[in-house]
Amino acid sequence: MIPAWLTIPLRSPDLQQEDAARLRQTQLTKPPGALGTLETLAIFLAAAQGRARPQVEQVWISVFAGDHGITAENISAFPQAVTAEMIKNFSRGGAAINVLARSLGASLEVIDLGTAQALTAISGVQHLHLGPGTANFCQVPAMSQAQCLAALEAGRASVMRAHAAAADLFIGGDMGIGNTTSAAALACALLQRSPIDLTGPGTGLSPDGVRHKAEVIERSLMLHKLALTSPYQILRHLGGFEIAALTGSYIAAAQQGLPVLVDGFITTVAALMAERLAPGVARWFLYGHHSAEPGHTAILAALRAQPLLSLGMRLGEGSGAALAVTILRQACALHNDMATFAEAAVSNRL
Amino acid sequence: MIPAWLTIPLRSPDLQQEDAARLRQTQLTKPPGALGTLETLAIFLAAAQGRARPQVEQVWISVFAGDHGITAENISAFPQAVTAEMIKNFSRGGAAINVLARSLGASLEVIDLGTAQALTAISGVQHLHLGPGTANFCQVPAMSQAQCLAALEAGRASVMRAHAAAADLFIGGDMGIGNTTSAAALACALLQRSPIDLTGPGTGLSPDGVRHKAEVIERSLMLHKLALTSPYQILRHLGGFEIAALTGSYIAAAQQGLPVLVDGFITTVAALMAERLAPGVARWFLYGHHSAEPGHTAILAALRAQPLLSLGMRLGEGSGAALAVTILRQACALHNDMATFAEAAVSNRL
Repeated sequence: MIPAWLTIPLRSPDLQQEDAARLRQTQLTKPPGALGTLETLAIFLAAAQGRARPQVEQVWISVFAGDHGITAENISAFPQAVTAEMIKNFSRGGAAINVLARSLGASLEVIDLGTAQALTAISGVQHLHLGPGTANFCQVPAMSQAQCLAALEAGRASVMRAHAAAADLFIGGDMGIGNTTSAAALACALLQRSPIDLTGPGTGLSPDGVRHKAEVIERSLMLHKLALTSPYQILRHLGGFEIAALTGSYIAAAQQGLPVLVDGFITTVAALMAERLAPGVARWFLYGHHSAEPGHTAILAALRAQPLLSLGMRLGEGSGAALAVTILRQACALHNDMATFAEAAVSNRL
Repeated sequence: MIPAWLTIPLRSPDLQQEDAARLRQTQLTKPPGALGTLETLAIFLAAAQGRARPQVEQVWISVFAGDHGITAENISAFPQAVTAEMIKNFSRGGAAINVLARSLGASLEVIDLGTAQALTAISGVQHLHLGPGTANFCQVPAMSQAQCLAALEAGRASVMRAHAAAADLFIGGDMGIGNTTSAAALACALLQRSPIDLTGPGTGLSPDGVRHKAEVIERSLMLHKLALTSPYQILRHLGGFEIAALTGSYIAAAQQGLPVLVDGFITTVAALMAERLAPGVARWFLYGHHSAEPGHTAILAALRAQPLLSLGMRLGEGSGAALAVTILRQACALHNDMATFAEAAVSNRL
């Protein structure tokens, strides 16, 4: 049932470079540990990239977009048309992720997996036409086998392009009205949690709207209860095209040894799904930010993830991860370019 | 007693630009509030700079260095010689703040206010020779009137240079072995807190070392009890040259209408001192990061400050603030360059 490529062995970080980087951090002109998480990041990247001097110059951002049949249940503050409209906005460079990608000099690609009204030939967008969005998973499985496999494969294809372009870091972004409902449903099924714990306002629901959204998820989980026999079946029954693509991309990144900077709520659920489908992939993940979407905390805890930023963002598109890229870059610059105690003739501690 | 310039009126942020920026944030193609703190930052900077399109291109960093007589009480994990050695390291570009300033394209100046062994003519360093460090405030006042006033004025002079260079943002950094002891003592006196609450390991004391450091502060507070009659006298009796310079710089920045990005423990104590000397200056402050030094939390709370980053850093030099600059830059880029709903023909919420 699961495609063969999902079982390709994962790359392992370079433990020699990890040790060398840890040693170097103790030699730089600063009290030991004084750069906090920046030290951990530099050591992580040295090990992941197998380099004494890690770098995050080439950043690859793939934004995966798709519509969700569950929007028929009135679970979003924005109309479904926004998914397609935002794909056009991405193509014209007007969205948040465009602005951030430009400021980073990052490569940005947009993958339209399928919208309610099919889009064609938008400049700079790849249209995969997996369907007019997913089906309404409050009534039927969200995806067919073929759709779910194609979406996973779409994510893998993005990572292969990133790898071919010698990317130092992969970021996946999401766009899809209704996708916090799908992501919360997936997380409930994976973590055996109650919908009310993991359901939030998304783009801006009222408290009544959030309660309704949790009820929709509760009904959906009951409906598919007997079919949710594996992480893959959970993904197929409750997921979205873009969430499956993110999941596939994260697994492929770990297979290629390409570090991933996970974004917010949607992408962290995809990261959890990836870890369940291919245990060990999370070793390649860093986490850009802690989303304001309340369910994010539980998903992060399940991955033992500590995000770099906590700025109350809840936009998706990969925007929180993109914002954190300069933290990684500066961690590398400090690791690579600071003087050692010996080089600078500075006394070490008493 | 207090120099006349401390009472120059403060500039006020531009409330029209603030309103315009707040409105613009609601028109950009994102759910309202979805950029979290980035929205607040853009609005703050638009008001502070009086510009519809705020920017943080020209960043000015002044690192203030000085020695502390209190090191005679054995309160630091590093020898006093490190202050002078690090000034040389700054001049050669090997310290963390050099690496960060280069990556930002920031102007970096180093002000040596006075070290135990006097330094002269180090390239790129301004030597002010206020004395061989402060006096040991466990025995006598840390600074004479003349020294304290000259240190405050040195900070003001840095801001005047930054202002003349059309800086968009001012960052002050600190270097001085022993300065967490001075900063903790100042905070205890300003906030009426017990030393044990605000004393931490600094560059790396053991728990026993921290207890001893708190006892030294306790004795110093007792010694000067009757003299600590005003914020200025607290600064003079317990402060350091670099802390007084930072205090002066922050007050001058608010007078010039130059936004300040405060760094960590030492600089936040200087920010609190500045607010006590010239109430209202804190309106011009942003806070770069939450230091791992445990006393920082209480000082931040006293200023109702919410730092942008929390990455376990505790280095000083302005490094945590420098790390946060790209967050401000990206907040400006998003505010200035994202498309509006109307421009992108994206539907607004239901």
